[in-house]
Amino acid sequence: MFAEPTPGDGGGAADGRDDGLLSPVAAGTAAEAATGDRAVLQALLDAEAALTRAQARIGAAPAGAGAAVTAAARAGNFDARSLALRAGAGGNPVIPLVGDLARAVAQHAPEHVEFVHRGATSQDIMDTALMLVAARTLGVITADLRRAAVTLGALAAFHRETPMPGRTLTQHAVPTTFGLKAAGWRALVLDAHDRLVRVRRSLPAQLGGAAGTLAAFVEPAATADPGIALLGAFADEVGLAEPEVPWHALRTPVADLGGALAFCAGALGKLAADVLLLGRTETGEVGEGGGGGSSAMPHKRNPVRATLIASAARQVPALAAVLYGCLAAEDERPAGAWHAEWQPLREALRLTGGAAEATAALCPGLVVSPRRMRANLGLTGGLLLTERLAAHLAPLVGRDAAKARLAELSRQVPDPYADLAAAVAADPLLGPALSAPDLRALTDPATATGSAAALTDRALRREPLPDEPRP
Amino acid sequence: MFAEPTPGDGGGAADGRDDGLLSPVAAGTAAEAATGDRAVLQALLDAEAALTRAQARIGAAPAGAGAAVTAAARAGNFDARSLALRAGAGGNPVIPLVGDLARAVAQHAPEHVEFVHRGATSQDIMDTALMLVAARTLGVITADLRRAAVTLGALAAFHRETPMPGRTLTQHAVPTTFGLKAAGWRALVLDAHDRLVRVRRSLPAQLGGAAGTLAAFVEPAATADPGIALLGAFADEVGLAEPEVPWHALRTPVADLGGALAFCAGALGKLAADVLLLGRTETGEVGEGGGGGSSAMPHKRNPVRATLIASAARQVPALAAVLYGCLAAEDERPAGAWHAEWQPLREALRLTGGAAEATAALCPGLVVSPRRMRANLGLTGGLLLTERLAAHLAPLVGRDAAKARLAELSRQVPDPYADLAAAVAADPLLGPALSAPDLRALTDPATATGSAAALTDRALRREPLPDEPRP
Amino acid sequence: MFAEPTPGDGGGAADGRDDGLLSPVAAGTAAEAATGDRAVLQALLDAEAALTRAQARIGAAPAGAGAAVTAAARAGNFDARSLALRAGAGGNPVIPLVGDLARAVAQHAPEHVEFVHRGATSQDIMDTALMLVAARTLGVITADLRRAAVTLGALAAFHRETPMPGRTLTQHAVPTTFGLKAAGWRALVLDAHDRLVRVRRSLPAQLGGAAGTLAAFVEPAATADPGIALLGAFADEVGLAEPEVPWHALRTPVADLGGALAFCAGALGKLAADVLLLGRTETGEVGEGGGGGSSAMPHKRNPVRATLIASAARQVPALAAVLYGCLAAEDERPAGAWHAEWQPLREALRLTGGAAEATAALCPGLVVSPRRMRANLGLTGGLLLTERLAAHLAPLVGRDAAKARLAELSRQVPDPYADLAAAVAADPLLGPALSAPDLRALTDPATATGSAAALTDRALRREPLPDEPRP
Amino acid sequence: MFAEPTPGDGGGAADGRDDGLLSPVAAGTAAEAATGDRAVLQALLDAEAALTRAQARIGAAPAGAGAAVTAAARAGNFDARSLALRAGAGGNPVIPLVGDLARAVAQHAPEHVEFVHRGATSQDIMDTALMLVAARTLGVITADLRRAAVTLGALAAFHRETPMPGRTLTQHAVPTTFGLKAAGWRALVLDAHDRLVRVRRSLPAQLGGAAGTLAAFVEPAATADPGIALLGAFADEVGLAEPEVPWHALRTPVADLGGALAFCAGALGKLAADVLLLGRTETGEVGEGGGGGSSAMPHKRNPVRATLIASAARQVPALAAVLYGCLAAEDERPAGAWHAEWQPLREALRLTGGAAEATAALCPGLVVSPRRMRANLGLTGGLLLTERLAAHLAPLVGRDAAKARLAELSRQVPDPYADLAAAVAADPLLGPALSAPDLRALTDPATATGSAAALTDRALRREPLPDEPRP
Repeated sequence: MFAEPTPGDGGGAADGRDDGLLSPVAAGTAAEAATGDRAVLQALLDAEAALTRAQARIGAAPAGAGAAVTAAARAGNFDARSLALRAGAGGNPVIPLVGDLARAVAQHAPEHVEFVHRGATSQDIMDTALMLVAARTLGVITADLRRAAVTLGALAAFHRETPMPGRTLTQHAVPTTFGLKAAGWRALVLDAHDRLVRVRRSLPAQLGGAAGTLAAFVEPAATADPGIALLGAFADEVGLAEPEVPWHALRTPVADLGGALAFCAGALGKLAADVLLLGRTETGEVGEGGGGGSSAMPHKRNPVRATLIASAARQVPALAAVLYGCLAAEDERPAGAWHAEWQPLREALRLTGGAAEATAALCPGLVVSPRRMRANLGLTGGLLLTERLAAHLAPLVGRDAAKARLAELSRQVPDPYADLAAAVAADPLLGPALSAPDLRALTDPATATGSAAALTDRALRREPLPDEPRP
Repeated sequence: MFAEPTPGDGGGAADGRDDGLLSPVAAGTAAEAATGDRAVLQALLDAEAALTRAQARIGAAPAGAGAAVTAAARAGNFDARSLALRAGAGGNPVIPLVGDLARAVAQHAPEHVEFVHRGATSQDIMDTALMLVAARTLGVITADLRRAAVTLGALAAFHRETPMPGRTLTQHAVPTTFGLKAAGWRALVLDAHDRLVRVRRSLPAQLGGAAGTLAAFVEPAATADPGIALLGAFADEVGLAEPEVPWHALRTPVADLGGALAFCAGALGKLAADVLLLGRTETGEVGEGGGGGSSAMPHKRNPVRATLIASAARQVPALAAVLYGCLAAEDERPAGAWHAEWQPLREALRLTGGAAEATAALCPGLVVSPRRMRANLGLTGGLLLTERLAAHLAPLVGRDAAKARLAELSRQVPDPYADLAAAVAADPLLGPALSAPDLRALTDPATATGSAAALTDRALRREPLPDEPRP
Repeated sequence: MFAEPTPGDGGGAADGRDDGLLSPVAAGTAAEAATGDRAVLQALLDAEAALTRAQARIGAAPAGAGAAVTAAARAGNFDARSLALRAGAGGNPVIPLVGDLARAVAQHAPEHVEFVHRGATSQDIMDTALMLVAARTLGVITADLRRAAVTLGALAAFHRETPMPGRTLTQHAVPTTFGLKAAGWRALVLDAHDRLVRVRRSLPAQLGGAAGTLAAFVEPAATADPGIALLGAFADEVGLAEPEVPWHALRTPVADLGGALAFCAGALGKLAADVLLLGRTETGEVGEGGGGGSSAMPHKRNPVRATLIASAARQVPALAAVLYGCLAAEDERPAGAWHAEWQPLREALRLTGGAAEATAALCPGLVVSPRRMRANLGLTGGLLLTERLAAHLAPLVGRDAAKARLAELSRQVPDPYADLAAAVAADPLLGPALSAPDLRALTDPATATGSAAALTDRALRREPLPDEPRP
Repeated sequence: MFAEPTPGDGGGAADGRDDGLLSPVAAGTAAEAATGDRAVLQALLDAEAALTRAQARIGAAPAGAGAAVTAAARAGNFDARSLALRAGAGGNPVIPLVGDLARAVAQHAPEHVEFVHRGATSQDIMDTALMLVAARTLGVITADLRRAAVTLGALAAFHRETPMPGRTLTQHAVPTTFGLKAAGWRALVLDAHDRLVRVRRSLPAQLGGAAGTLAAFVEPAATADPGIALLGAFADEVGLAEPEVPWHALRTPVADLGGALAFCAGALGKLAADVLLLGRTETGEVGEGGGGGSSAMPHKRNPVRATLIASAARQVPALAAVLYGCLAAEDERPAGAWHAEWQPLREALRLTGGAAEATAALCPGLVVSPRRMRANLGLTGGLLLTERLAAHLAPLVGRDAAKARLAELSRQVPDPYADLAAAVAADPLLGPALSAPDLRALTDPATATGSAAALTDRALRREPLPDEPRP
C-alpha cells in the first residue's frame, strides 16, 4: 500500500534536506543562495564574531578575543545539519552553535573561549543573523528591481504611442498604449524597490541579553554605561542599524520585512498577470520570448518566467500575514511567535528574490507585437470607441439619445464583431450628424489614447530611491 | 429542523444589514462610524462633487456645475441599501449612484446634469472615496495612538525602576522593569503611528477614465493638457495626493494601507497579549481596571478591552494578505481583484480603529501592582538570578563549574520554589566563594535590572511623527 | 483637509451600520439575509428559548417557562444596534441580551424570569446561535449549488463532444471538449456541496456553563445526571447535533466551517476564472449572458457575476486561515481567539453564499459558442496537434527525429499562425511519411479529444450527497 | 557594509540548500524525511515507474518495460540539485527528470526507453508524486496522533476527578478537572486524526495527458477504452485512489490536504497553548518535563516542545489559505496557481508532522501537579464559587440580592485574594442564610466540578477512525 516503503526507495536514507526541487522560482537564484542554511549559518557566526569584537572595542574583552572568534567563525567549519538536529532540544540553533564555536575557538585560542557569546542570549544572535541575511538578500533583490526598471523604462519610452486595447473586467474598453502599460509596471517595480530600500536601511542589530535589559553586559565592562555602549559598538561591527531598545518582543523589523516583501511579490505579480494574459494564444500581443518547453507537446512555448513569478505572488502575502501575526508576541520572548517567524521570513525573501530575478530576466526578452495590438484593436469593429462617439454625438443629437442609440447598435453588431463605423454611418439618427472623415477619425483607435503619452513621460521622470549604505 | 424558519422568526424580514453585533471591538467607535456605509456613501458623493468642481476649475464645466453637484451630494438624500441592491448588476455601487445623483441635480439645476460624473469611470469615484474613508479613519486612529502613547510614556517614566520578572518562553528569566515594558509598548505604538501617518499623507485621488488614459477628459476642456490638469485639480478639490498616473490596476495605496493596518493591529496585539498574561489570576501584576462582567459569574472582572484588541490582532493580518494578493491585478481594471479589496479594506480600518480606541481607553486604566511584581520576583527563590550568579562565580570557581553547580542546585530546589541564596550559601563549592552580603546583593532582583532604566529614558525621547496635513 | 468634516456631510450622523454597499457579491442575497444581524439576533433568542424549553423538558424548570421565553424571543422586539453598543462592556452581545430578554419575559410572565439563561454562560448562547446561523445559511448555499450542478450537468451533456482548445500555462495545448470542462466545473461544485452538507450535519449545539463542566445545571435539576441530560435535550430543542463535550475551547465546528466555505468559494472561483478567460474579447467562446453595464462605455457587457464570484474566492481563504488559527484557543474560554471568530465566520458564510447564488444564476445564462471554439482551434494552424503527429510519425521516421522536426516546423510557422498540415506535407522528411487523408485526419482537432466524452459521462454519473436533516 | 561579502564568508559557496536550521519543529523528524527533496524525487520516480507498469498491464507497452523503468527509478541514481536547477527552464522538475530517467533506462534496456513517460504530461507525474508524499507523510502523522491520544486518554482517566481552576478570559471562573481538560485535548487530537485519515484515503493518482483528455493514451493501447483503463491501472500500481476525472485544474485533493493539515496544526496548537499557560512560573500546574536549556540562564527549563508546536500552529493556516486560493485555477493547467501549491503543501505536511511528533513526545512527559492546582484553586479565596453560591442563595435571599451582594463582597476582598467564605459568613444578609457546614461545602472547589467526570468518561469512549488502507 501507499504507506509502505516502495521498491524504488532503495536503502538510501531520505534525509529531509531540500535542494529546491519544489521551488523552481527560487532554485539557483542569488536570493536562494543568500537565504540558504549555509548563508544563515555564516550570518549566525558573523553575529557572534561581531559581538566579541564589540566587547573588545569597549574594553569588556581582550583585543585578541575578537580576532580569535572572527577567525573561527567560518561556516565551512561547522555542520549545519548537525546543528539543525540539535536545535530541537533548546528550540533554536544558536544553543548548539555556541558550544561548537567555543570548541573551535579553543583549538587556537583557548584563552578567549570565555568571550564567546558572553552575556548574550540566543535571540540576540538569531535575530541579528536573520537581519544580516535579510539585508544581504534585499541588496540582491533591489539590484534586480533596478535592472527591470531600466528595461521597462526603455520599453515604455519606445512604445510611448503604440496603441493597444485597454481592457477592463476582461473586455475591451477604450484604447490605451503599451507605453503607459509598461510605465505602470515600472512604477510598481519602483514602488517595491523604494519600500525595500527603506526597510533595508532600518534593519537593526539585536542585543539585549537574557530579558532585554543588557544586564549581563553591565558589570564586566569598563565604560560608564557599558550595556548601551556595547549596543552601539555591536551594531557598528555587524553593519546594521542601532536599535533604540532591544526588540526581542517588539518585532517591527520582521513585520516591516514581511510587508515590503509581500508588496514586492504582489507588484511583480501584476506584471506577470498582464504578460500571461497578453501572451495568450488568442491575444498574442506580448510574448515572453524564449519560453519553456513541455514534456509532451513539441510546439509549446510556455511563459515560464511569468508563471513562476505568479506562483511567488500567490505565496508571499500569506507568509507576511504570519509575520504580522507574530507582532503579538507575549512577554520578553514569546513561546512560539518568535520561532514561527524564521521559516516564513526566509521563504518570503527567497520567493520574492526568485521573482525579482525572473522579472529582471523576463523584461529584456519581452516580444511586443504592435501589429497584433492593432489587429486586436480592430476586433470589435470600433466598439471600444463608443464612449468617445457618445461624447461627440451628445451635443449633436442629445446625450441620452446618443448613448442609447450607440448601445443598441453595439448590441446589433454581428458576432464575432463587425464595423461600428459602418453601422453609425447607416443609422438614420446618428449617420447624418457626422461627416465621413469625422467618423473615420473618431473611430481610429490610434487617435484615442488620451493623455497616455503624457502620463508615460510623467511616470518615466521618476528615479529609484538611492540604495546607499546607511550613513 | 434547523433549516426551517423558526417559530421566533416572526414575520420580520431578516434584512442582511449589520449593526455591529459580531464586532464588539468596533461597535460604537469613531472608526466604525468613519467606515460605515453612510460614510462610504458620503465619500462617494464627495468624490463626484469634487470632480465636477475640478472640471469647472479648469474650464471644462460651467462655474455653477460644481456648486450644483456639491449641493446635491449629501448622503442623507440617498438610499444606501437601495444602492447596494442595485450595485450587483454592474458590480459596483457607483453605477446606480450616478443615476441617482443626476436625478438629484436635475431637481434644482437641470442644466448641470450633464456634468455629473462626466468622463469618469466608476473606479475613479470608488477608489477616491475609499481613500477619503481611509484618510478620515486614519486621522481618528492616529489620534488614539498618540493618546495611548502619552499614557504609556507616563507609565514608563513612573515605573522606570519598578522591578518585575522578565519572562521568556513563559518562564521567569531575569528581572526587568515595568518601565522598560511600558516603554516597549509605547515604541510599538509609535511605530504603528508613524507608519499610518506616512501612509495617510500618500493616499492619492484616482482619476483615469475608462481605461486610465484620461481620454474622455481631453477634448472638452479648455487647457493645453486638460487630462493631467484635471488630475491635479481633482486631487486638490478632494484633498488627497495627486498620483503620478492613474492607479486603477497599480494598487500601491491599498496594499500600503493593508500593511500599515496589519502592523498597527499586531502592535496593539502585543500590548494586549502582555496585559492578558500579567493580569492572569495567578500573576496579578497588571489589571485592566474596570473590567467586563460575566453573564454567569458575579466575581468576574474580565480584561475585555485587551481581549477585544487581541481579537482584532488575529484578523487584520489575514485581511492585509488579501489586499497584498490583489496587487496582482490584471489588465486596466481587474475582474475580481479590485472588487475583493473593498470589504477587507473597510474591515481592516474598522478593526484597527476599534483596537486603537480600546487601547487609548485601556492604557489610562491599567492597574499596576509593584507589590505583586516583587512577590513574583521572589517566587523562584532567586532562580532568576542564576545567570548573574554564574557570571560572578566564574572567576572564583571556574566558569563551567559555576554553571554546572548552579544548574544542579536549580534542579534541586523544592517545588514550588525555595531559596537559591540559601542553597548557594550551603553549597560546599560555591558557599565559601561569596560573603553573605555579596550573596544577598547578588540575589536581590531590584539591583539586577541592567540598563533597563537607561533604555527606558532612551525610548521615551522619541516623539511621534507629526500628523500634519499634506503640504 | 481630508480629515475635516466635509461640506457634504451635513448633520447626518454617520452611524457605522453596513447596508452591503461594499459587498455586491452578497448584497440582497438570501445568504446575506441569513447572516445579517437581525438573523444573528433571532438565532441568539432561539438559543435562549431552546435552553429554557430543554430545562423544562428535564424537569429543571416549570413547563410554562419554556413557552414564556419562546414567546418573548422574537428579534423584532429587541434593538440590535443597542445590543451591539452595549456588547463592548462585557465583550459579547449575550450579556446585554440576557437582561433585555429577562425584561421582555417579565412583562408577561414575571414568574419565569429566573429561568432565562439559567445556568448558562454567554458562550453557550453565542456559539449555539452562530451554529444555527451557519446551518440555515448552508441550507441556502447547498440548494444553490445543487441548482448550479443541474445546469452544469445539462451543459456538459449537451456539449459532450463540442471541441475546444485545451489550454495549459495560457497556451493552446491539445483539444478538449466543452463538455469535459463543464463536467469538471460540476465535479468541483459537487465537491463543495458534499463538504458543506457533511459539515452542516455535524454542527453542534453548545452547552457547558461557566467553564464547560455543566456545573450550574447539575444541582437544580431532577434527573440523575442532569447536566448531560440537559445537553441532549437542548441540542434536540435547538435542532443541532449533540456534542460529546462542551466545545468552548475545542473549536472543531468553526474550523470545519471555515475550511468547507473556503473550499466552496475557491471551487466557484475556478468556474469564474474560466468564464472570465473564455469570455475575453479575443476569445469569445463563453459569454456570461446579460452582463453588467458600465458607467462610461455604452458597449460594455461586463461579466459581472463571474467577477463577483472571483472577488469572493480571493477573500474566503484568508478568513478560513483566521478560523483555523483560532483553534489554538487557550484555557476554558480564550481571550480573543473566540471573539476573533465571529465576524470572519459570518463574512465567510455571506461571501460564499453570495458566490453560490451568483453561480446558480450565472450557469443557466452562459452563452456557449461552438463556432468560436472551432475558430480558435484553427488559430494555431494545427500546432495543437503536434503531440499527436509526433506519436504517429515516431514509428515512421523515428521518435526523436519526428519530435525535433515538428518543433522546428512549429517555430517556423509565421505569426500569427499558419497551417502546420501544409508545412508537414511540404517537409522532405515528414511529408512522404503520411498520406494526405491521414494528415487531414490527424490534424482535425475534432477527432483528437481522446477520452473526453467518456470522462464526461463518468463524471455526470455522480449525484450530490443527500442534504437530509440529521437523523 | 552589510551587503558586502563578509570576512567570515570564506570562499565557501553558499549553495541555497536547506538543512532544517530554521525549522526546529521539523528538523530530524520522520515527517521531514518523508517530505524532503530526496523523498519527492523518489515519489516522482515511483510515479513514472507505475505509469509504465500500468501501460504494460493494459497491453500498451511490453511486459519488460515496466520492470526496466522500475529498476532504473531509484532516487539514489539521480541528482536532485541538478534537477532543481534545470526545473526553472520549463517550470517544473519533471521535464529534466524524464530525460535523465530515459538515459538511465537506456543503459540497461534501450528498447524500453520509448515507454518512459509515454503519453503523460509533467503534471501527471508531479501531482501523483505529491499525493504519494502526502500519503506517506500522513501515515506518519496519524500514527503520532494515535500515540498522543493513548497517552492523553490515560492522563484523562487518571485525573478524572483532579480539580483545577477553570479559566475564562484569563481569569479563574469555576473549577474544572484536569481530566476533562486532557479529554478535550484528546478529542481535538482525534478530530485531527480522523480528518487526516479520511483525506489520506481519498488521495488520487493523476493521469490526463497534455490537457486532461487522456488523448495520447487512446490510440496506442489495445483495450476498448484505453485511456480510462489506464487511469485505473495506474492508480492501482501507484497505490492511490482512482480519480473520476483528471484533476489538473480541479484541485480538491490539495485543498483538502491544506484544510486537514491546518486543522491538525491548530488542534495541536490548543494543547500547546494550554501547556504553555499551565506551566508558567506563577501557575506551575503542568510542566513539560525535561525542558530545553538556555544559552544564558542555567536554571531555565523551557517548554520547548510546546513552543515549537505553537510555532507550527501559527504557520500552517496561512499555508492552507494559499492552497484554498489555488482552487481558482484557470484553464486546463493554470500558470502559477499550480506551481504555488508545491512548497506550501510540503511545508504544511512537514510542520504539521513535526508538531505531531513533538506532541507524541510531549504528552508522556507532562508533569501534572494536583498540589499546585489545589493551591491555585484557593488563590481567590473562594471567588470562583460565586456562581454556585449565588444559585444557592437565590431562593434564600432573592436572586438579585444574592448576586449583587456577592459581587460587592468580591470587589471588597483584599488584594491579592482572601477568603470569600469568611466574608460571606460575616455578611449581615448572606451570613445567616447558610450554616457553617453548608458554607464550607459550597465553597469547596473539589465538589464543584459538575459533570466533568461524566463528560470525561463520555469523551474517552470515542475511538480513532481506523487507518486502514483503502479497500
